[in-house]
Amino acid sequence: MEAVNRAELAGKLAEIEHRMRQAEVRGAVASYIPELAKVDPARFAVAVALPDGTVLQAGDAATPFSIQSISKVFTLAIALGRLGDQLWSRVGREPSGLAFNSILQLEQENGIPRNPFVNAGAIVVTDAILAGHQPRAVLGELLHFIRLAAGDDDIHINRAVAVSEQATAHRNIALAEFMAAMGNLRNPSALTIGTYVHQCAVEMTAIQLARAGLFLVNAPGCPRLVAPARIRRINALMMMCGHYDGSGEFAYRVGLPGKSGVGGGILAIVPGRASIAVWSPGLNTNGNSKLGTEALEHLARATGWSVFG
Amino acid sequence: MEAVNRAELAGKLAEIEHRMRQAEVRGAVASYIPELAKVDPARFAVAVALPDGTVLQAGDAATPFSIQSISKVFTLAIALGRLGDQLWSRVGREPSGLAFNSILQLEQENGIPRNPFVNAGAIVVTDAILAGHQPRAVLGELLHFIRLAAGDDDIHINRAVAVSEQATAHRNIALAEFMAAMGNLRNPSALTIGTYVHQCAVEMTAIQLARAGLFLVNAPGCPRLVAPARIRRINALMMMCGHYDGSGEFAYRVGLPGKSGVGGGILAIVPGRASIAVWSPGLNTNGNSKLGTEALEHLARATGWSVFG
Amino acid sequence: MEAVNRAELAGKLAEIEHRMRQAEVRGAVASYIPELAKVDPARFAVAVALPDGTVLQAGDAATPFSIQSISKVFTLAIALGRLGDQLWSRVGREPSGLAFNSILQLEQENGIPRNPFVNAGAIVVTDAILAGHQPRAVLGELLHFIRLAAGDDDIHINRAVAVSEQATAHRNIALAEFMAAMGNLRNPSALTIGTYVHQCAVEMTAIQLARAGLFLVNAPGCPRLVAPARIRRINALMMMCGHYDGSGEFAYRVGLPGKSGVGGGILAIVPGRASIAVWSPGLNTNGNSKLGTEALEHLARATGWSVFG
Amino acid sequence: MEAVNRAELAGKLAEIEHRMRQAEVRGAVASYIPELAKVDPARFAVAVALPDGTVLQAGDAATPFSIQSISKVFTLAIALGRLGDQLWSRVGREPSGLAFNSILQLEQENGIPRNPFVNAGAIVVTDAILAGHQPRAVLGELLHFIRLAAGDDDIHINRAVAVSEQATAHRNIALAEFMAAMGNLRNPSALTIGTYVHQCAVEMTAIQLARAGLFLVNAPGCPRLVAPARIRRINALMMMCGHYDGSGEFAYRVGLPGKSGVGGGILAIVPGRASIAVWSPGLNTNGNSKLGTEALEHLARATGWSVFG
Repeated sequence: MEAVNRAELAGKLAEIEHRMRQAEVRGAVASYIPELAKVDPARFAVAVALPDGTVLQAGDAATPFSIQSISKVFTLAIALGRLGDQLWSRVGREPSGLAFNSILQLEQENGIPRNPFVNAGAIVVTDAILAGHQPRAVLGELLHFIRLAAGDDDIHINRAVAVSEQATAHRNIALAEFMAAMGNLRNPSALTIGTYVHQCAVEMTAIQLARAGLFLVNAPGCPRLVAPARIRRINALMMMCGHYDGSGEFAYRVGLPGKSGVGGGILAIVPGRASIAVWSPGLNTNGNSKLGTEALEHLARATGWSVFG
Repeated sequence: MEAVNRAELAGKLAEIEHRMRQAEVRGAVASYIPELAKVDPARFAVAVALPDGTVLQAGDAATPFSIQSISKVFTLAIALGRLGDQLWSRVGREPSGLAFNSILQLEQENGIPRNPFVNAGAIVVTDAILAGHQPRAVLGELLHFIRLAAGDDDIHINRAVAVSEQATAHRNIALAEFMAAMGNLRNPSALTIGTYVHQCAVEMTAIQLARAGLFLVNAPGCPRLVAPARIRRINALMMMCGHYDGSGEFAYRVGLPGKSGVGGGILAIVPGRASIAVWSPGLNTNGNSKLGTEALEHLARATGWSVFG
Repeated sequence: MEAVNRAELAGKLAEIEHRMRQAEVRGAVASYIPELAKVDPARFAVAVALPDGTVLQAGDAATPFSIQSISKVFTLAIALGRLGDQLWSRVGREPSGLAFNSILQLEQENGIPRNPFVNAGAIVVTDAILAGHQPRAVLGELLHFIRLAAGDDDIHINRAVAVSEQATAHRNIALAEFMAAMGNLRNPSALTIGTYVHQCAVEMTAIQLARAGLFLVNAPGCPRLVAPARIRRINALMMMCGHYDGSGEFAYRVGLPGKSGVGGGILAIVPGRASIAVWSPGLNTNGNSKLGTEALEHLARATGWSVFG
Repeated sequence: MEAVNRAELAGKLAEIEHRMRQAEVRGAVASYIPELAKVDPARFAVAVALPDGTVLQAGDAATPFSIQSISKVFTLAIALGRLGDQLWSRVGREPSGLAFNSILQLEQENGIPRNPFVNAGAIVVTDAILAGHQPRAVLGELLHFIRLAAGDDDIHINRAVAVSEQATAHRNIALAEFMAAMGNLRNPSALTIGTYVHQCAVEMTAIQLARAGLFLVNAPGCPRLVAPARIRRINALMMMCGHYDGSGEFAYRVGLPGKSGVGGGILAIVPGRASIAVWSPGLNTNGNSKLGTEALEHLARATGWSVFG
């Protein structure tokens, strides 16, 4: 990998923003959560946090957006901290080869979701954290973790988004109830899904999200919230499963562990070097940010940051 | 990542060999190819090739074994060199979530295999190279490529293994004929499968295989058979799909791009640093070398070579 | 078909009962609904209702049992009476090739269940009847229909069974919520499933059930609750889908339209001739009464009542 | 069922022919077998054979057409005569819920096809008859059986159709090779598929086909080629599986055991009463004759011949 000059990097981010602003095909904003459907598809942000805390940025990097499924990275870190490898008796570690909200593999594989990043798996992770606690306490712990990672207390849950998502959560409830039927849910589905939609409704700016990802960079100066061996494993899971059935494509084009959210954000980790957040609300057919992926592809090529050589 | 001292590395390889020799649960040697079923399950080898051409090793590293599906890495490199991105109209780039020899996804996805490393995908790659050539010429080109990569002309195809595999190739013929029915095969299935079983019957020692992998390391001193951008992409595919439905597990435990073969070999790439070959004939339930994976897990932990931080 | 002498038929029923009482392998009583798990597996009943109202019987034919999925025949008749062919925009008419409670076909076929007798399909039927009504009113209409068909007002819902089933209804709720997500549910799932578990908890004796089936026999003297063309269609659906993924086996062995329930009951129709109810609580692997099926096989052979010649 | 007057029946057939001739939407003629694609879509025939040997007819009832999958009924009868219930260890008796040429269920169910009428199942049946015989001898036996049933020696195999089908038989070869891999094929796939495509290429007129179906009617006067108990079972299989994933629809609309062929023919059995053949080359989306099904629906309604009351 090539060394990266900060001034060059800042210039590269500006260039990427310029290019993405002009893109005509921007993907479709998620429509199944009414509150998210209102977001302006012209928004674009990119932010790079370095281990020393510096953040380089371009675009709407100070505008909060709904992190949605990116929250799964934080709940996974919390769940592994609480349960350790016991978590793996309830959820697998393999790519699914199917859509993020698919239910059929649950039937074929006895109610054990394929990985913690498809919806069913993330619901299990949330259910595991809930055990014996109130949703309010769990959501408090999540916010505490994210704020600590980001070094910023001004991070909140958007209740309107949570309520909006709750109203159309039929498919997630179906996943939860199906797992309950197979003995893989510990709390009432209403409690688990209620917590889940609130966790997805966390709002962060690209700057905050890039900073919050530093705990996965594993370099001197980064917050030490998780042991190095676990960092490597979470990054491996992000690489393999972070973009649902588009994970292979993301690895092929970008070459970094990443996690996308239906709000149009992506968090990508450059092990040992940087944490990157991008945001563009339009999605591709796999439900990942279309321009966000393109921006990361440009950035990885320009910096030589791909983990693949 | 930590710097690696060669003496320490040699010591580590010796220690790993010692440990693997004593393992009691060694997995089951592949039985569906009669010639492979004869191999002694007590065999073990590990070899690490560095960019300057040095090879460190332990165990039966000078004993040839059948590389089987590891050959798919070399045919993919050849096919991309010949067809470039056109290849991707005939085969995808996503993990399958299914067994290496599964046929059902072909039916659900119009005869387009999920990736070049499941059997159906590798058959398409071989079929693509064949177009307009004789099997003999294609196999000659493959051997030429491998010998060049390894810097060693003493690499051959074991005809007895090829004949043995041909006799039980019903499932691969079924995959080929199914793709023919969907318009995704250009040659008679007998020709394509005949070439395919011979490509799988290439025999190499761990030393040769480790050397042959250097063209994917992308460091000064390594053979330059493929452009850097393509190296990154092949490594990405190995990471995502190189161990079939155990790819997530391999990424989680080892953290390196790798490709396994049913003969018990695994080739793993450390981008910028090294190429590793391991060999232990016993397989786990996903068809990947059981002790080979464990050896790589030990080695990656000891060296800090995981790409994930 | 041979003419059937009533005395001979009565003798045959007695012989069948004797034989079934002595069977050692009786199948397993359904365990997932706690109240049903308490039923004595030694119970056995058979009753044959003729168009003139005569009922011949043997065994525990006056003991009420939970009709469970047999109720789906009555709700289908009511739904077709109310909606006519509009119902078929929400549910199909083909065998499923899968278990009664499978969810995966819903995902592959856009939330449209395969037929009205798999759980998902029956839930849609109940949901269709509910529209604009209170569960209490719908259950009242169902009881009215059954009582009229049976000519017997002493038919009721066992609330304890309904409550017991409600408590373990996760999988049915998952089916309902999944269909809600696909736009194929009109009422809150709690309302639809609440009604559904009560409809399944109707209790009838074999005598009552045999009589209640006469409306599908289409012969002079039978209650005329449904037009002949619709009778033929309901019988066709019972033949094709009435025993889930064991429907082919039932047709092969018995040769009559039938509908089974997890309580161990089966209603079978002999078009133009008779309605038969059998009850034996032990189930085979497809969830159909094991001895009930055997009893019907004996009876069909002795009477020549198979519709297949 | 109503008694049927022959003059009225003849009039009804003429009326049906008239109506079908005028239909504008006729379905699409099968295109994947080049020889079949040449057939005139305007052709239409209907013939009814009664137990006394009388045949009533309308349309092109003396024009030979390719019976294709209708041949599966005759090979099943032969296989059951030769092997009895042993056949059922290699093929099931349930509807598949999938297309006629689907391969995925083979993978999920260990190479055992769902029933003898989907392609995979019919290939197993042919493979079972072949054992120890030459294809020529087996095809001779098939022709002998059909000629005997039809009381007509002028029934032959169209070699041009067989050759045409052989050239595009990739999918059937895939099915055969997949079953070979699972241990469910006894002969080389080339031999079994070669026999299979010839069996499908038998040509018959509607008159001949209606007569040939009489052995399944089970009434005095009909040829006695199969015992009554077996007749009932073959009819049950035709009802449940004779129209692939459109079997439910056929039962719902027509209410008779039937078997369709991709050449546009359908054989339907009225147990105890008649054998019916229809022919119209255009197919519906499930691969069954579109107008042939409609004609049978009209005929069944007019005669009251549905087995469902």
